[in-house]
Amino acid sequence: MNPPVPSPAVSLIDVLVVGAGPAGLTTALGLTRAGIKVRIVDIRAQRVLAGHADGVLPRTIEILDSYGISNELLRKGHYVNAFSNYNHDPPTGGIKVGIVSFYYLRYAGKFPAITEPTARYKHAVTHHQGFIEGLFLSGLKDAGVLVERPCEPVSLELSSNEDELKDPTSYPVKITLEHHSAAPGMHSSETVCARFLVGADGAHSWVRRTLGIPMEGDSTDRVWGAIDFTPLLSSNFPDWRNVATVNAADGGLMIIPREDNKVRLYIELSNVNEFEHDERGRLDTSTITADKLLDIARHVLKPYTLETTLDKVEWWTVYVVGQRVAARFCDQGRAFITGDACHTHSPKGGQGMNASVNDGHNLAWKLAYVVKGWSPMALLDTYEAERRTFAQELIAFDKWFAEGFSAKARAKLVEDGSDVVLPGPLEAFGTFSGLTTGLGIQYAPSIITSQVSHAANGVKTEISPFTLTVGKRVPPYAFVRVADCRPINLQDALPSDGLTKLIVFAGPLTSLEEKNRLVEVERALRNILDAFGADRFLLLVILSVISDDMNYMDVPVGLRKDWTSVLVDAVSAFSKDSGGAYTAFGVPAAGQLVVVRPDGYIGTIVELSEMQRLGEYLRGWML
Amino acid sequence: MNPPVPSPAVSLIDVLVVGAGPAGLTTALGLTRAGIKVRIVDIRAQRVLAGHADGVLPRTIEILDSYGISNELLRKGHYVNAFSNYNHDPPTGGIKVGIVSFYYLRYAGKFPAITEPTARYKHAVTHHQGFIEGLFLSGLKDAGVLVERPCEPVSLELSSNEDELKDPTSYPVKITLEHHSAAPGMHSSETVCARFLVGADGAHSWVRRTLGIPMEGDSTDRVWGAIDFTPLLSSNFPDWRNVATVNAADGGLMIIPREDNKVRLYIELSNVNEFEHDERGRLDTSTITADKLLDIARHVLKPYTLETTLDKVEWWTVYVVGQRVAARFCDQGRAFITGDACHTHSPKGGQGMNASVNDGHNLAWKLAYVVKGWSPMALLDTYEAERRTFAQELIAFDKWFAEGFSAKARAKLVEDGSDVVLPGPLEAFGTFSGLTTGLGIQYAPSIITSQVSHAANGVKTEISPFTLTVGKRVPPYAFVRVADCRPINLQDALPSDGLTKLIVFAGPLTSLEEKNRLVEVERALRNILDAFGADRFLLLVILSVISDDMNYMDVPVGLRKDWTSVLVDAVSAFSKDSGGAYTAFGVPAAGQLVVVRPDGYIGTIVELSEMQRLGEYLRGWML
Repeated sequence: MNPPVPSPAVSLIDVLVVGAGPAGLTTALGLTRAGIKVRIVDIRAQRVLAGHADGVLPRTIEILDSYGISNELLRKGHYVNAFSNYNHDPPTGGIKVGIVSFYYLRYAGKFPAITEPTARYKHAVTHHQGFIEGLFLSGLKDAGVLVERPCEPVSLELSSNEDELKDPTSYPVKITLEHHSAAPGMHSSETVCARFLVGADGAHSWVRRTLGIPMEGDSTDRVWGAIDFTPLLSSNFPDWRNVATVNAADGGLMIIPREDNKVRLYIELSNVNEFEHDERGRLDTSTITADKLLDIARHVLKPYTLETTLDKVEWWTVYVVGQRVAARFCDQGRAFITGDACHTHSPKGGQGMNASVNDGHNLAWKLAYVVKGWSPMALLDTYEAERRTFAQELIAFDKWFAEGFSAKARAKLVEDGSDVVLPGPLEAFGTFSGLTTGLGIQYAPSIITSQVSHAANGVKTEISPFTLTVGKRVPPYAFVRVADCRPINLQDALPSDGLTKLIVFAGPLTSLEEKNRLVEVERALRNILDAFGADRFLLLVILSVISDDMNYMDVPVGLRKDWTSVLVDAVSAFSKDSGGAYTAFGVPAAGQLVVVRPDGYIGTIVELSEMQRLGEYLRGWML
Repeated sequence: MNPPVPSPAVSLIDVLVVGAGPAGLTTALGLTRAGIKVRIVDIRAQRVLAGHADGVLPRTIEILDSYGISNELLRKGHYVNAFSNYNHDPPTGGIKVGIVSFYYLRYAGKFPAITEPTARYKHAVTHHQGFIEGLFLSGLKDAGVLVERPCEPVSLELSSNEDELKDPTSYPVKITLEHHSAAPGMHSSETVCARFLVGADGAHSWVRRTLGIPMEGDSTDRVWGAIDFTPLLSSNFPDWRNVATVNAADGGLMIIPREDNKVRLYIELSNVNEFEHDERGRLDTSTITADKLLDIARHVLKPYTLETTLDKVEWWTVYVVGQRVAARFCDQGRAFITGDACHTHSPKGGQGMNASVNDGHNLAWKLAYVVKGWSPMALLDTYEAERRTFAQELIAFDKWFAEGFSAKARAKLVEDGSDVVLPGPLEAFGTFSGLTTGLGIQYAPSIITSQVSHAANGVKTEISPFTLTVGKRVPPYAFVRVADCRPINLQDALPSDGLTKLIVFAGPLTSLEEKNRLVEVERALRNILDAFGADRFLLLVILSVISDDMNYMDVPVGLRKDWTSVLVDAVSAFSKDSGGAYTAFGVPAAGQLVVVRPDGYIGTIVELSEMQRLGEYLRGWML
């Protein structure tokens, strides 16, 4: 298939990303790191400067780590370590004057925000969305990719020619872009022909609407306000620096601590009587102001005080909670939607931006493999299969989570004179911890996530939370790097570089026999990898033990890229935290081969003695 | 005293720093962070781009941390975790053919580079000097301070007027600067009048020579080569990534692993016969080339191979080891010298740059306090007292360290058929560990480092390596911050901001009585601090325990700057590493007040019940 002949205003690109929010930026960075040419455009003249999403959850931090861009976030963000809870005090605990009861909030304890045992980060990190976009923008800039903005897509044609659609080298996506601030002499209108299109243009996605993909689900009747402000030191509420849920008698709010002493409040508005409702019974949001939001919050927080001034309000909004998922995440195998374009839900669960980053992270490497001709188009089907399922689970969580804030639930607490310490929303966080932290995600069996080995299946009883499990992410674990005795976290040895990782758990290296056994492993592995192209893989060797007379050079050169490729699972003078990984991971003493997808999820596990299973697995999705 | 009337080419400055190497940059950054106006000039047109110093030791990393500039170093530097050792194999272990013995190197094990129990960093970090200078340059740039270069000082006058010298507000230093690349219309020559001068202009210091300060000590007869290169992967020497000492039969070298796969070698040249010696018996270094240095290294490393090419050599030099200390570090209380200008020794101990940073860190806050009028001129005397003593200890270490490399010592090993695993240089590192890591430094008693309290003395038996000790640095320790449940390392709560820190170990906060006791502490402390000016101090409260019904707001507002100021010494759900500090630090359960100098060293310790001792201590060096 010949590419179209470019005219001055027609250009070709492998992947065009529309929308430079977290979903689009992650997709673009992932593609760039895998060596794919990408363009990314955004209709906004500049990135978000305040407000919007603000919580980065543990799995998302791990992903930012894998791109090497988490650093500034970890330095400058606020760490959410605890969930704190304030309940309406039942009358017996309040003050009764005559027949009037004064209800007060009562502090009901705090507990760790992140309880997943495999969490590398035992906290979430908050910072405003624009800062987080900045992390990706820096990463893209380092690779010479700049967001083109303000740039508006105005027309989109997707070829209906079956042959063209089936040919991954064709350019079936034709999109017209209006560059609103084009430099003199440049076309202000441009037609781009792309092999693939990614619509990451938000909840009101132009790409989704143009492709005619419907959203499924409903809006709720719950209306919330969100406001970012800095409390004065004179405020006597003592819990601005933790995530706190406040369930008062006649209102509720949630506190999110933020960078630079800022605070985000989510304030329930549905039950506030003073606002107008329209003829359909819906709250008229036009009369709401920042001042009113703060007044409602002050009322809910009594007897504690919230003191601030309007010039310390950075951003605010009012929204109706919708809970919807797009019917499809893909059109014709060529146009994809990601992030808010695919799923909308309550922001309070802190999931929006995190789901978006995970969408982009999941899609990017798959697009890269198809563009490079490494994988068939069928690989792309796994994007919707994996991420739409996740989005639906997210909506289920959101419904449960939101329930805990409902007036009905609160009324029941009061009625019961309940002493409940963990009401609905926090229970929901606990129950859905694997989902909300992102750490428990397990992608379902597919061509890329497949238990090909019965032997490897056999040992995969979950003996610890760290047990290596097909479909789950590789957990963090400390090893000692043999060449320089440096403690290395396994996740840091698995960068998001577009390569498939082969972790050879090679057993012990303490004798010539064991050294020769590694030579056999090398031979078996090389035969398979050479068939696909060794440049698609990064090998890592993890020894269970190495004797003092051996060094990393005793590992066959075909199993290591350089001196950084050999780790050992040992407690040693050089690392007090390492050791015990073979046991915790459920890896047999004789070793095992773990295939890690480019996004850090385990693709399959095979015994070293049945290397042909690796070939079977790879033939399932590689060319 | 009136300042001189400035002419267009005469300017006034509080502190002029001559030399923008590590010593000068640290001094300038320390002054800037304390709010002092500083200028820094350097004769070189740009910062060092390769070679020179390259090892950052644990205490120096802590200092970089305290300025918030360690981040990039920790990300990009190479971590030295292990010392590895190769010895000449005695004949019995070698091969004997007829009467000829073939000597081989034998790997003699490795051990942790840093064994100090209080080390926050269990490793050194290497990166070339220019990179480390860049950390400081970024910090200075953030504060609007740029190094003026190339700029040459050409004349220096220091007033001999006693009254002027005694008046800290006078400008007794008059120095003429030649700006070699002055912009058009700017004076290329400038006279600067400064209140204080800092000469940080290296081993051949113009400032030191102009002030007529002699160096004391000798040059040795030991000649060394140093070379930075990247070994090819085909080199089979297995220990490029650790610090390794190699003691061969007829030569010695030391390997320093560096960033980006680079390696620094220090190669002993004194015994190499092929080089010419001059009429005084000294080695003629003019015939030495990079190629020859590598050849000698290859010879020493046999049977291992060192493969590289000349284009992979980044930098090299040859030097005669000198071991000298300046007779004085200060002239008239107004002109100071720091870094290499004060002390020269073998670079192999990795001390030069580290001593320089510590010099600057020690001097900066003292100059700042005098310039601000917070302290008398006498405070400045402590710079020479503290840092010259350290320099002399460094020379003692250097002599012992260098001894281990001598041909005589090696010959004896061979003669004895010794099986010694740790020869001289490594023993020296072990013995001088407190000195070489910088972690064991204890400044001698003085006006700023003073055991004023007998009671506090009484409990200061060293019950753990973490025992708080007057004159030593505050060790790292994990606490939980009360407001946000975040694990906080105590060192991170003590930034290098020019303030004196008062750590109130306040005991428990679990009852109204204990809360009232804190109010009494607040009252006693405030009386004293207000007398000096509360803006000179940063208060930190460390509770031994806090009950669940108390929060940070129950600590009196006069004891805390904001929500970040209250920590608790507890093992909790929020931090597995914290707890036990009161015991480890030797702080009594009822509490204690620890005064920390702005450079992180403990100034004094008093009981909460004898707060008047604090006043006595502060009157000793504050106005």
